Amino acid sequence: MSPILLNCLGKDPNEYIKELVQVKNPYLDGMEEDILYHLSLSTKTHNLPEMFGDIKFVCVGGSANRMKAFAQFIHKELELNGNPEEVSDICEATDRYCMYKVGPVLSISHGMGVPSISIMLHELIKLLHHAQCRDVVLFRLGTSGGVGLAPGTVVVTDKAVDYSFLPQFEQVVLGKVITRSTELDEGVAKELLQCSSELQNFPTVIGNTLCTHDFYEGQGRLDGALCSFSHEDKLEYLRKAYEAGVRNIEMESSVFAAMCRVCGLKGAVVCVALLNRFDGDQITATHDVLVEYQQRPQILVSHFIKKRLGYVV
Amino acid sequence: MSPILLNCLGKDPNEYIKELVQVKNPYLDGMEEDILYHLSLSTKTHNLPEMFGDIKFVCVGGSANRMKAFAQFIHKELELNGNPEEVSDICEATDRYCMYKVGPVLSISHGMGVPSISIMLHELIKLLHHAQCRDVVLFRLGTSGGVGLAPGTVVVTDKAVDYSFLPQFEQVVLGKVITRSTELDEGVAKELLQCSSELQNFPTVIGNTLCTHDFYEGQGRLDGALCSFSHEDKLEYLRKAYEAGVRNIEMESSVFAAMCRVCGLKGAVVCVALLNRFDGDQITATHDVLVEYQQRPQILVSHFIKKRLGYVV
Repeated sequence: MSPILLNCLGKDPNEYIKELVQVKNPYLDGMEEDILYHLSLSTKTHNLPEMFGDIKFVCVGGSANRMKAFAQFIHKELELNGNPEEVSDICEATDRYCMYKVGPVLSISHGMGVPSISIMLHELIKLLHHAQCRDVVLFRLGTSGGVGLAPGTVVVTDKAVDYSFLPQFEQVVLGKVITRSTELDEGVAKELLQCSSELQNFPTVIGNTLCTHDFYEGQGRLDGALCSFSHEDKLEYLRKAYEAGVRNIEMESSVFAAMCRVCGLKGAVVCVALLNRFDGDQITATHDVLVEYQQRPQILVSHFIKKRLGYVV
Repeated sequence: MSPILLNCLGKDPNEYIKELVQVKNPYLDGMEEDILYHLSLSTKTHNLPEMFGDIKFVCVGGSANRMKAFAQFIHKELELNGNPEEVSDICEATDRYCMYKVGPVLSISHGMGVPSISIMLHELIKLLHHAQCRDVVLFRLGTSGGVGLAPGTVVVTDKAVDYSFLPQFEQVVLGKVITRSTELDEGVAKELLQCSSELQNFPTVIGNTLCTHDFYEGQGRLDGALCSFSHEDKLEYLRKAYEAGVRNIEMESSVFAAMCRVCGLKGAVVCVALLNRFDGDQITATHDVLVEYQQRPQILVSHFIKKRLGYVV
């Protein structure tokens, strides 16, 4: 039997229902058609259960090129039939996102920032619901600024925190601000840390991730078009972040964590630090070093998937 | 003399200095190198004044394909030498954004949402500063949901407003929330409206634009993965928006307006409404109709540019 099927066995039917991907929208199942506009898919024009029903792992990241490279990488790692170079973009009719399916793994790009990933997550979660997927784990693989970490260190997010270092995400619903928790699945985070210890020279920590809505002023960079604070102000903010358990800064983790939690999806955020923000603001590593760093979240998540599927013991 | 040069004549030197693109960062000019990381450009590796010094119009929009199509369109409209099909992506070393230069016009993609466009704007404004550009007009060309408008109507933004319908943008700076004005240039908006009246069958209004941070809950859609409100709640919010002068909803105008204002750039937001949100949430127009709608902001801004450059009187 294919190792891919191993994790679907030995569960009673109630467990299956419990682990269905849960949309939280009473209107959805009554719609005659659901157009997933930004993915260029629809319940009328595509057989979503047939296309996606076997998905167990969804990996998302900002860059389209990188998520294509990840699809090709996991294709090789899972030793699947066919040419890894020939993976094709399921969303090729739109340039908003790209999407590749490799066995039980879906690899999708989400662009930069909370609003961009939020659109993709709404439509992805509806897709998983329409396809009747069960027992899915979601990963965000990304890059980030490190806070007191050597460049190249991988951070597995404990909690995604906002600019006040609180584990919450503010969502506007019809003009009112509501707050959602951004705690991620503890079990998956620990399993990822265990995986990292099984890899060679793989510096990895679990820490909080500061999620900001911009790259410059919100992250205390001195090199944007706008900067109204001093070098000392910046360092003080970073020191406070470090004291609150923050180990890296990126721009998507909070809504990712909040939506996973609301929809009963196990989610993890795995980002490599490209620089130590205490040392500077600009990303100055050479192209080759950056490429090597960017591959680390891919290697770690691939190891996790292979273990879950029984490829590695 | 080329009509492109016409608008550079007849001004005294003080006017030139006044119209320089203004960064608001005292640290920038002291940096040995400025790496515009997400554009894959740098002051050390690229001669920015030579590459970009003659830019007078910058047009930005979410989709990479659409901004390439706009570059090809304006190439034809300005009757420039060379094959419009062969415009090349200046940022091809990165997949974050794409950028095309066509005579005095720069066409750049910005992805979806405030954080994504904000990164691009920081680096674009630094680029225009390093390149010593003067007298630049910025346009955002986009798509939107209409509020009480027939699909296909073009909205030129008066003010970009937040979820409370206030003309302001909240920016976090080192953990503190500051508020910036989102009023756009009144003269450019009026000039665009005048241009629309010179085109055939070109329904155009000036109105406020609601800028949200997500596409589903924040815009009152009933078809997201999450929905906790009723159809009547949704309509009530849209009615309040309409009463506050809102005519369309999109996801980038507020930070665009705020940054233009702070940096002394004349900016305008020109978005077509793809649907009337009072009638529904899903975008159901056929592909051909959508393409025709999406071209309208391009046609209007192209007409504006041609008038300014003396191609049309």
